[in-house]
Amino acid sequence: MKKVDILIIGAGPAGMVAATTAKKYYPNKSIAIIKSIKAGCIPCGIPYMFSSLKDPSDNKLKTDALEKKGVEVFIDEVISIDSEEKKVKTKDSKEYGYQKLIFAIGSDPIVPSIEGIDKEGVFPIYKDMGYLKEAIAQIKKKKKVLVIGGGFIGVEFADEISNIDGIDVSLVEMLPHLLLNSFDQEFSQLAEDKLKKKGVNIITGARVEKIIGDKNVKEVKLSDGRIVQAEGVVLGIGARPNIKIAKTANLNLDPRGGIAVDEYMRTSNPDIFAVGDCSCKRDFFTRKTVPVMLASTATAEARVAGANLYKIKVVRENKGTIAVYSTYIDGLVLSSAGLTEKNAKEEGFEIITGEVQGVDKHPGTLPGAQKSRVKLVFSKQSGIILGGQVSCGMACAQLINLVGVAIQKRMSATELETLQMATHPYLTSSPTKYPVVLAAQEAVKK
Amino acid sequence: MKKVDILIIGAGPAGMVAATTAKKYYPNKSIAIIKSIKAGCIPCGIPYMFSSLKDPSDNKLKTDALEKKGVEVFIDEVISIDSEEKKVKTKDSKEYGYQKLIFAIGSDPIVPSIEGIDKEGVFPIYKDMGYLKEAIAQIKKKKKVLVIGGGFIGVEFADEISNIDGIDVSLVEMLPHLLLNSFDQEFSQLAEDKLKKKGVNIITGARVEKIIGDKNVKEVKLSDGRIVQAEGVVLGIGARPNIKIAKTANLNLDPRGGIAVDEYMRTSNPDIFAVGDCSCKRDFFTRKTVPVMLASTATAEARVAGANLYKIKVVRENKGTIAVYSTYIDGLVLSSAGLTEKNAKEEGFEIITGEVQGVDKHPGTLPGAQKSRVKLVFSKQSGIILGGQVSCGMACAQLINLVGVAIQKRMSATELETLQMATHPYLTSSPTKYPVVLAAQEAVKK
Repeated sequence: MKKVDILIIGAGPAGMVAATTAKKYYPNKSIAIIKSIKAGCIPCGIPYMFSSLKDPSDNKLKTDALEKKGVEVFIDEVISIDSEEKKVKTKDSKEYGYQKLIFAIGSDPIVPSIEGIDKEGVFPIYKDMGYLKEAIAQIKKKKKVLVIGGGFIGVEFADEISNIDGIDVSLVEMLPHLLLNSFDQEFSQLAEDKLKKKGVNIITGARVEKIIGDKNVKEVKLSDGRIVQAEGVVLGIGARPNIKIAKTANLNLDPRGGIAVDEYMRTSNPDIFAVGDCSCKRDFFTRKTVPVMLASTATAEARVAGANLYKIKVVRENKGTIAVYSTYIDGLVLSSAGLTEKNAKEEGFEIITGEVQGVDKHPGTLPGAQKSRVKLVFSKQSGIILGGQVSCGMACAQLINLVGVAIQKRMSATELETLQMATHPYLTSSPTKYPVVLAAQEAVKK
Repeated sequence: MKKVDILIIGAGPAGMVAATTAKKYYPNKSIAIIKSIKAGCIPCGIPYMFSSLKDPSDNKLKTDALEKKGVEVFIDEVISIDSEEKKVKTKDSKEYGYQKLIFAIGSDPIVPSIEGIDKEGVFPIYKDMGYLKEAIAQIKKKKKVLVIGGGFIGVEFADEISNIDGIDVSLVEMLPHLLLNSFDQEFSQLAEDKLKKKGVNIITGARVEKIIGDKNVKEVKLSDGRIVQAEGVVLGIGARPNIKIAKTANLNLDPRGGIAVDEYMRTSNPDIFAVGDCSCKRDFFTRKTVPVMLASTATAEARVAGANLYKIKVVRENKGTIAVYSTYIDGLVLSSAGLTEKNAKEEGFEIITGEVQGVDKHPGTLPGAQKSRVKLVFSKQSGIILGGQVSCGMACAQLINLVGVAIQKRMSATELETLQMATHPYLTSSPTKYPVVLAAQEAVKK
C-alpha cells in the first residue's frame, strides 16, 4: 500500500488548487492526487470548445505544473474509503493510505429520465476531453441543434453553437425567462434579445417531454405540444454532487446536496475535507443549502481547505457562499452576485433597489462603447447590500467582483455611495455616472 | 442681486455632481452654477480628442441635463466672495447671494517658467473646448511633437498623438521611468515597452531646459545637453489647485495644495464647501497632503458635499484619499490604488508584497487574451492591504476598483486569499489563478 500525507480525489479546479495550496502551506508533506479522467477540461471553458477556441484541445486542464511541484498524480478511480484505517481502494485494485483526505470529485451532469434520452445525438456534458472532442465533432455535423436548459451553461452553449455556419440552434427553458436563477427579468431580457438577434430560437415556459427518432434523435416534443426539429441535443441542465464514494466513508451528507462541511471545509470526519461541487454549499444570507456549482467557488473552498488541513492557518471570514459569476454572450457580459430582487423577496427580506443605466465608456462615442446596467439590492432597514446584477461590455466585467467584495464585507448603501473608484474613458462609465455608486445613491434616496 | 440657496462655482465633474447630488437630497432648495468656460470638456477624455474620437466635440461636458433638473447655469466668472454677506461678485458685475457655497473651480495646468515656453506651438492643456479644438488642429499639422511629462496624462497624450499618421512623438520625463508616482518600476517598464513599440521616442531622467525657435518652437534643449526636434510641444506636467478667489473668502488654505477641508468637504467657513482639484487631499494612510487630481476623486467628494450641505446625511467612512486610477495605452491597461512598494517604504511602512503574472482570459488561447500582472502591498505585521498595481487587458480593468474597495475596507491578506469571486473564460484569468487571490496568498506565505 502506498502511503501519502495528503491524498486528494479529483483533479478539477478544486483538486488542483487544494494540492497547490497544501504544497504552499505544508511543503514537507507528501501529496498525491487520484483522478479518474485521463485528460480533463477547464470546466467553464467547455462552451468555447465549439467555436471560440481554434482547437478544442486548448481547453485541456493540465496537471504538469502540479507534478513539477512534487505532487504525484495517479490515473485511477477510487471506489471505496476505509475511514477507520485511513486508506482508499481503487478500481485498479490499489490501496493508498492517507493522513488527510480531500474530496474534490465534482459533480455529474443531470440526465433527466425523459423518453428517448438515450438516443444517439443526445449529449450530456461530461468533463472529459476525449468524450467532448467526439461530441463536438458530431454536433458540428448537424443542421439543427437543441440546447436544453436556459441557465448560464445552456445560454453559453447556444451562443457558441450558433456561431457555427449552417447550424440552427434552439434553446428550451422551463421557466418563463432565461437565467432566472441569478437574474431579475430585465437582465434575462438582455440575454434573450442578444441570442434572438443571433438567430437562436428561444422557447421558454416549456419542458422537454419526449425525444423522438429512430436510432438518432429527429425531433423533440415539448410539454405544450410543440415539436422542435433537432438531430443534435445538448443537455445544459446542471449537475448533481458526486457523493457515491462519500457514502462508503460514512460522511454526513446534506439531504439536498453534497457532502456536509463546516466553514473550513471539514466533513463529519476530522481528517476528511470536501471542496467544490461535491460539497454542500450554504447561502451567505439565508444559510440554506444552495446548488451553486462554480469553479470559482470551488477554488475558493480549496484554498481554505488546503491551508487548514493540519492547523487553522487562514481564518475564514465568510461562512456562506455568494453565488458570484459572469456569463458572456457574444460580447455582452451579464454578471450577478448575491440575491436578486426576486430571490430576496421570496426569502422574506424587506428590500430597496437602486438601478442605473448608462454606457460603459465615456464619452459614449468611444469605439467599442456598450450599454451598461447595474442593479443593486439592499436590506431596507439595515442598508446592507444583499446582491447586485450587472450588464456591460468587456471592460467592466470585473465590476461584479467589486460588488462581491462589497457583499462579503457587508457594505452599506451609504458606504458605496461615497466609494472612491478609478474611472477611465476607455474602461468605465464617467466618474459622474459610475454605476455602482449611482445605484447605491438611488437606493439611499428611496 | 440674485439669491439662490446653493451656489456652485465651476461646472466640471465635481461641480456637476455636487449639483445633482444636492438636488437629490434637497429637492426644495434652489441651485445655481456659475461657470467661466462656455463649453468645457470631460477632463479624462481630453487625450482621446486627438485620434480615438471621430470628432473632438464628442468630448464636450454638457450641462443640459442639469438645467433640465432645474439647476440654473450662468456663464460668468466669480472674481470675489464676501463670506460675511454671503454673496459673490462676478466679472460681468453681477452679484449672487447664497446660503451654501461650493467651490468646484478645479485646477490650472502647470506652465513651467522655462525659457521659450511662450513660443507658438507650445500647448498647455486648458479644459476649454474651443481652445483644445484649435490646439489639436494645430498639433495635427506638425511632423514632430514633444510631450513634456511622463505621468499618466503625458503617457496618454503620447499614445494618442502617435496614432496620427505622419507625426513622430517624443516623450520626456525627469524621473528615471514613466508613471513612477503611481507604479513600481516593473509596471512602468510595461508602459515604456508599449510606447516604444508604437515608435514613441522616450527620454527619461532629463528635464526640459530651454525651448528654442523663432516665433514657433523648433527644438527643445534638455538638461543633459541633448536637443530634441519638435515643432509642437504639449505640456502634460500636471496642475495646481485654483485658489485665487478662495483667498477673497478668507478660507484656510493648505500650504502645499488647495483649500483646506474636513472629511465632509467643509472649509474653515461652515457655509462654504470645496470639492475636486481645488480642495486639499490627504492620503488615506499617511494623512499627508497629496497632489491627487482625478475626476473620480472629485466626484466622490462632490457626492459627500452635496448630500451633507445642510445636515450630515451620508456618513463618510473613509477620511483620506486613495489615489485609485487606471490608464490605457493602446489596449494595455495599467491601474494603481493606494501605496506602491516604493512609496510605502519611503513612508516608513514595513511591508510584504505578493506578485503574480498570468493571462487575463482562460484558456490563454482565447481571442484577445493578454498578459496580466498584479502586485499587492501589505503591512507586514497587521496584514492590511496598503496598495495594489494591475496590468491587464480591457476585461480586468475594473479589478483595480476591487483592490480600491479592499483598501477602503482595510481588508487583510488572509481575507483576500479566501475571497469569493466570479471568473469566466472571456473575462478573467482562471479560478485557479485569480490574480488578486494568488498575490494575497504569496504575501501570506512570506
